[in-house]
Amino acid sequence: MDIFDRLESEVRSYCRGWPVVFGEARGSHVYDETGRPYLDFFAGAGSLNYGHNHPELKAALLDYLAGDSIVHSLDAHTVAKRDFLETFGEVVLRPRGLDYKVQFPGPAGNNAVEAALKLARKITGRETVVSFTNGFHGMTLGALAVTGNSMKRHGAGVPLNHAATMPFDNYLDGQTPDFLWLRSLLEDSGSGLDRPAAVIVETVQGEGGINVASAAWLRGLSDLCREHDILLIVDDIQMGCGRTGPFFSFEHAGIEPDIVTLSKSISGYGLPLALTLFKRHLDVWEPGEHNGTFRGPNPSFVTGTAALNLFWRDDRLEKETRTKGELVEDALTALAADLPGTGAHVRGRGLARGIGFTEQGVAKAVCAEAFRRGLLMETSGPEDEVVKLLPPLTTSEEDLRRGLDILAESARAAVRTPQPV
Amino acid sequence: MDIFDRLESEVRSYCRGWPVVFGEARGSHVYDETGRPYLDFFAGAGSLNYGHNHPELKAALLDYLAGDSIVHSLDAHTVAKRDFLETFGEVVLRPRGLDYKVQFPGPAGNNAVEAALKLARKITGRETVVSFTNGFHGMTLGALAVTGNSMKRHGAGVPLNHAATMPFDNYLDGQTPDFLWLRSLLEDSGSGLDRPAAVIVETVQGEGGINVASAAWLRGLSDLCREHDILLIVDDIQMGCGRTGPFFSFEHAGIEPDIVTLSKSISGYGLPLALTLFKRHLDVWEPGEHNGTFRGPNPSFVTGTAALNLFWRDDRLEKETRTKGELVEDALTALAADLPGTGAHVRGRGLARGIGFTEQGVAKAVCAEAFRRGLLMETSGPEDEVVKLLPPLTTSEEDLRRGLDILAESARAAVRTPQPV
Amino acid sequence: MDIFDRLESEVRSYCRGWPVVFGEARGSHVYDETGRPYLDFFAGAGSLNYGHNHPELKAALLDYLAGDSIVHSLDAHTVAKRDFLETFGEVVLRPRGLDYKVQFPGPAGNNAVEAALKLARKITGRETVVSFTNGFHGMTLGALAVTGNSMKRHGAGVPLNHAATMPFDNYLDGQTPDFLWLRSLLEDSGSGLDRPAAVIVETVQGEGGINVASAAWLRGLSDLCREHDILLIVDDIQMGCGRTGPFFSFEHAGIEPDIVTLSKSISGYGLPLALTLFKRHLDVWEPGEHNGTFRGPNPSFVTGTAALNLFWRDDRLEKETRTKGELVEDALTALAADLPGTGAHVRGRGLARGIGFTEQGVAKAVCAEAFRRGLLMETSGPEDEVVKLLPPLTTSEEDLRRGLDILAESARAAVRTPQPV
Amino acid sequence: MDIFDRLESEVRSYCRGWPVVFGEARGSHVYDETGRPYLDFFAGAGSLNYGHNHPELKAALLDYLAGDSIVHSLDAHTVAKRDFLETFGEVVLRPRGLDYKVQFPGPAGNNAVEAALKLARKITGRETVVSFTNGFHGMTLGALAVTGNSMKRHGAGVPLNHAATMPFDNYLDGQTPDFLWLRSLLEDSGSGLDRPAAVIVETVQGEGGINVASAAWLRGLSDLCREHDILLIVDDIQMGCGRTGPFFSFEHAGIEPDIVTLSKSISGYGLPLALTLFKRHLDVWEPGEHNGTFRGPNPSFVTGTAALNLFWRDDRLEKETRTKGELVEDALTALAADLPGTGAHVRGRGLARGIGFTEQGVAKAVCAEAFRRGLLMETSGPEDEVVKLLPPLTTSEEDLRRGLDILAESARAAVRTPQPV
Repeated sequence: MDIFDRLESEVRSYCRGWPVVFGEARGSHVYDETGRPYLDFFAGAGSLNYGHNHPELKAALLDYLAGDSIVHSLDAHTVAKRDFLETFGEVVLRPRGLDYKVQFPGPAGNNAVEAALKLARKITGRETVVSFTNGFHGMTLGALAVTGNSMKRHGAGVPLNHAATMPFDNYLDGQTPDFLWLRSLLEDSGSGLDRPAAVIVETVQGEGGINVASAAWLRGLSDLCREHDILLIVDDIQMGCGRTGPFFSFEHAGIEPDIVTLSKSISGYGLPLALTLFKRHLDVWEPGEHNGTFRGPNPSFVTGTAALNLFWRDDRLEKETRTKGELVEDALTALAADLPGTGAHVRGRGLARGIGFTEQGVAKAVCAEAFRRGLLMETSGPEDEVVKLLPPLTTSEEDLRRGLDILAESARAAVRTPQPV
Repeated sequence: MDIFDRLESEVRSYCRGWPVVFGEARGSHVYDETGRPYLDFFAGAGSLNYGHNHPELKAALLDYLAGDSIVHSLDAHTVAKRDFLETFGEVVLRPRGLDYKVQFPGPAGNNAVEAALKLARKITGRETVVSFTNGFHGMTLGALAVTGNSMKRHGAGVPLNHAATMPFDNYLDGQTPDFLWLRSLLEDSGSGLDRPAAVIVETVQGEGGINVASAAWLRGLSDLCREHDILLIVDDIQMGCGRTGPFFSFEHAGIEPDIVTLSKSISGYGLPLALTLFKRHLDVWEPGEHNGTFRGPNPSFVTGTAALNLFWRDDRLEKETRTKGELVEDALTALAADLPGTGAHVRGRGLARGIGFTEQGVAKAVCAEAFRRGLLMETSGPEDEVVKLLPPLTTSEEDLRRGLDILAESARAAVRTPQPV
Repeated sequence: MDIFDRLESEVRSYCRGWPVVFGEARGSHVYDETGRPYLDFFAGAGSLNYGHNHPELKAALLDYLAGDSIVHSLDAHTVAKRDFLETFGEVVLRPRGLDYKVQFPGPAGNNAVEAALKLARKITGRETVVSFTNGFHGMTLGALAVTGNSMKRHGAGVPLNHAATMPFDNYLDGQTPDFLWLRSLLEDSGSGLDRPAAVIVETVQGEGGINVASAAWLRGLSDLCREHDILLIVDDIQMGCGRTGPFFSFEHAGIEPDIVTLSKSISGYGLPLALTLFKRHLDVWEPGEHNGTFRGPNPSFVTGTAALNLFWRDDRLEKETRTKGELVEDALTALAADLPGTGAHVRGRGLARGIGFTEQGVAKAVCAEAFRRGLLMETSGPEDEVVKLLPPLTTSEEDLRRGLDILAESARAAVRTPQPV
Repeated sequence: MDIFDRLESEVRSYCRGWPVVFGEARGSHVYDETGRPYLDFFAGAGSLNYGHNHPELKAALLDYLAGDSIVHSLDAHTVAKRDFLETFGEVVLRPRGLDYKVQFPGPAGNNAVEAALKLARKITGRETVVSFTNGFHGMTLGALAVTGNSMKRHGAGVPLNHAATMPFDNYLDGQTPDFLWLRSLLEDSGSGLDRPAAVIVETVQGEGGINVASAAWLRGLSDLCREHDILLIVDDIQMGCGRTGPFFSFEHAGIEPDIVTLSKSISGYGLPLALTLFKRHLDVWEPGEHNGTFRGPNPSFVTGTAALNLFWRDDRLEKETRTKGELVEDALTALAADLPGTGAHVRGRGLARGIGFTEQGVAKAVCAEAFRRGLLMETSGPEDEVVKLLPPLTTSEEDLRRGLDILAESARAAVRTPQPV
């Protein structure tokens, strides 16, 4: 393993909590090179909603590659892209009545966010974008400016501007009415907040600690944006593609964002792909005004198309996710009750779940204990105070239960052991 | 084809010059869905230096995928990443005496650039980055600030700051000594240029119009940076991986940049992958200070490793590229001489070549004529005034000659036809 | 008068509400060139706390000028500056136990603010400055970034950055605990607010609409700043020099700001002068790091010294201001009660008072009616919804009553007349 | 004197080279409090073109003040302002055919610059302002961004943006054609320089080291601006009001700037006053969009009017300045020839003159020696390498010669004495 120490930058992080070398992976399991299995409750931070190497997606991919179909094509037209667009339109957009256009802004989520911000500023001629406490949108300079985490912001090396942070749902513990502050700023010409181009929001903040925005709050935000002619961007990179149940995480709120970003699980196979969606009349881009080399990764289109066909032509997955989510919630609730004095509390929606601890260091210790027991999980939240559960949506109930058992054991072990800070 | 019109954003560009739907691709040829072949002199803007779907890389990739090896792993350790790092160290770094560490900053070139800029600013505690006229470094906000193209800059929707543009080699047509201006600014405490964190430069500007920096100019720049304690970043995304002959495009100049960015052809197969390299002592990143979902695309590692093993364990490819480059240069020189009155002139190094026209619209017309004759080429330069040739390095001499013949025919046809502006 | 129309920029403003040409001025009265007197309840926006052309200050000034004492001296030492410093130390600083150093940053309030912001950023190495809704700090680019008014911000022509706006006392109508939001942002490493260099605040917002911060709120702010190692800047340009009673407007709160700005009435005679005060250990300026031509306006020092000697060696003025303030408050309260349906409400402290109207246009109409009746007043607040009373502190009770009578009459007249919007 | 040490900030500068306390001042002489006279070759950095306490200006000022004429009036109409505007129109604008409108942006030069920049950005809707190496425009954040001096820039504490520095006339020692670089940037859509709102330039850089722009260079700049629809701002704060001979320093070049800033000597008496002038059609300000407390300092109007009447109704002063300038130039040229090995060289126009030294520390030493001999002078240039001569324009030839003799003596003394660095 010392090749990693010797050659790879100190910036690497996940590998520090999982000090093994992974080799194979199938469904909800990953195997290290010695063949030891790990149950994966992290799913590539939400990039593997359908598990690792799903056999039907794999078949489509192998078939595509074996036939010498085109792999790299910039933004030229390809058969694979056409299939993807047709399927996305038919399976995702049309049934939901969404008249969006699709931009392929680059291979990663940050490209989708950067394109969304650029487009919103171009459309409105304004600069400021409102983001929310503990929001996470990416590491490139534009995306970082709307991201809350101070350590990551500090990495910019330049001041991050043109953004204003507002309280996420329930951030102020119910001590103030929703949007009182944002509405006051918008309605007061002396407030010092320049009229924003857009608001960017996650419906459930994954990196921020599995913080859930209620449907009412999302509707309130949408209304406020409409009233003030501000574009609403939902960053659905982590919570989209069914993570919370429906394909888009905002569906249950009955809102229709002006701009939506997708990535992570959109290729379905863990391959890089990102989409920026926007209402048809907002497509004011000049040809080539935003470009990039990997905007048309055909293998990602192929697995993405297969995944849409397999999982989104009916509501089976959505229902299963809801059911499994409740199973997880119940287990976590029971576990929290079983850990008195730790401030354990439960959060989440669908299969984006978390158990938070007020005592510092506990969450990290729980994940370490879980890893020792063959379960992959990660922390989130500004102080790494939340154990985050993002199992593949396709995880069997049996595996879910097994993982939850390991988690419970790990939590009890971690709480027994005094934590070094 | 109308699914593209209906669903895909107006931002799409390459597809406008090539109004067909591509299906398969092998080596230097791409086929549209009707089976019509196109000789590819664009190579994914330099992402396909080894051609499309190279059989040995394909075999490695199919083997990897078929065996359920892990595809997505964030920045965890994997067998595929270890192989890549070991091979990269052994084949690329060690023989060149480069003691670099490797960061995987995300799947695309812009991630490599953003990471490079962040790191340079963090190391120095300064903000300003010097870039060059007609430089191109990417579309995310940090990368865009050091990119010259005004249309793309305008797309930012916010002022682009913390950057200063300087004349690229020969920009001022020899009417002023190299670095007179930059050196004066650096040495004069009243100049108004805040001391830069870094300089970012391409050795050959691909998007900027195939503008070649001489070895002497690059050495001068490197010396100036050293003198003033400024980090030198070479963006080798398009010109690296052998495009100009040697693996790194700066090797012939005998300089050793502090930071190097790689992407495009580093996976060898057109799959997304990007690297930021920096001298060992510059690795001041905190764990996780820059992160991202697609930092460890294992399929890209697999094909990247295979490509390094296949092409870079000896100097055969480098020599061939030099020879083929001369072949192209000779043909272009002859062609230019054959197009009097068009201001045709020849530029480039290795297999990054261009023929520029002073008359507006000619280059675009040449590419259109070429497409009709089954040859894929693109323009570059601020006014699209240069026909750019980036054939796969593996293109046979026969195909090269054939493509050059088509180009010559196309140029003559374009010049005969009056150009609408 | 058409010379003004012909030659002076459209930017001029006060002259539009007072379409006469002023000639002489004595105490609380200004006379137009025909000799018509106006009772002045505006006092140069708080620059004439001791009235116009106070005879003792005038005598000192004439004596100084007549004797060919030096007028302009950059920041050289002069007798006049020494006298001012000695008097300021003895009369203002020492009795209040304030160990401040004094910077003369230029002749105007914005210079004092710009110097304060620069110093706070230099000391802390941070960029962000927290300001408050409806704060007003000046028109130069640094000061404008912490000013709330959107029309004035828009005049910048560039985005205004490195600042974050927070709710002023009672901004959210008691619907949220004080500092809940700011404290949450400061204590949450994921909040998106970069750690601020400083907070800049007015104890009573003059331009913002005579919004009064309570002593408890100011103490809370001071404590929060101390806890988080953030510098507290009180901008006392309009409210200092006795406007609210004590010399500094923050004295009653028992806080000791790190940095204080003074201007307007500090020369006592309406002559340009500005001071930036800061705790001794914060004096980290390099010699000449902030300079300017008019930093040592000796005539201003002379009248400033005379004013300090005359008004601040005892507590007479402070007591009178308090008494007169109550007189005004009572009259305004009675008036508000007498204007049902207008939403009239009373605000202020000392002799900074306002009567606000919820109905748009009323305040402007009241001022217009007052002008017709020989009383100078101005509106303030983001929508010009507040009639602002800033009479000279030296206004006799008789004149105060007379002015208040005119105001009452004017208000009744304005309310009777339907307002065009 | 220790009150200054004890109470005044370390930022003070001029007083460090002149460690005495000044009391009186008449014409070209300043007296310390013991009565020792100093011949003043600094003239308040160009604020005292008509000398200290000119008797006719003083008479007008005393008369104005004695009669209780209004001193402070914000931007209301006053008799004094009207007189000033009428006189300025009649004496300055009309004879020169300049159809400018006049803004009173605040009392200091930086206010004039800030207003100019804001207006240029508002008019054009662009952000970037081009400034020149070693330009000096003031210490407020907007003005500082277009100022070259690195120590002063560093004082900002935030990155200074929206500006680009270009080579001043002869900056590159004739090694490159004028405007080759700026013109290339403007004409190349890939240059990375966003289209500027304006160019801001001094015709002679005072603080920058008495660097003189030739008439041809200024015309070239003006033409380039016109061609590219960029506003030309001449900052005439130090060089206006006759310092170089004519009232405006740009007159000899035959150009007509879009915007002009004036301050320093415009009041004629060392009192704070500043003007921003702009072509009539550029007056797009909203009422009150830029405001400030000390925009209408009536005493400054009074002395300013008197000065215009006294000095600018005929061309006597202009001619005298030219003659005296030649006298100074001849003396400096002789002196430079007399100081072999020091790299002494002579610069300037009119009565803005300098003698520069290549050896570090010499200029400072010369000024110190001069002070000991009763002559006030200051250094300028980025390394304080130039002794700057800005005597009052009204200095008698006898005094000029006497000062030049002292300077020669001081220079010889300084050169004899080895300089500590």
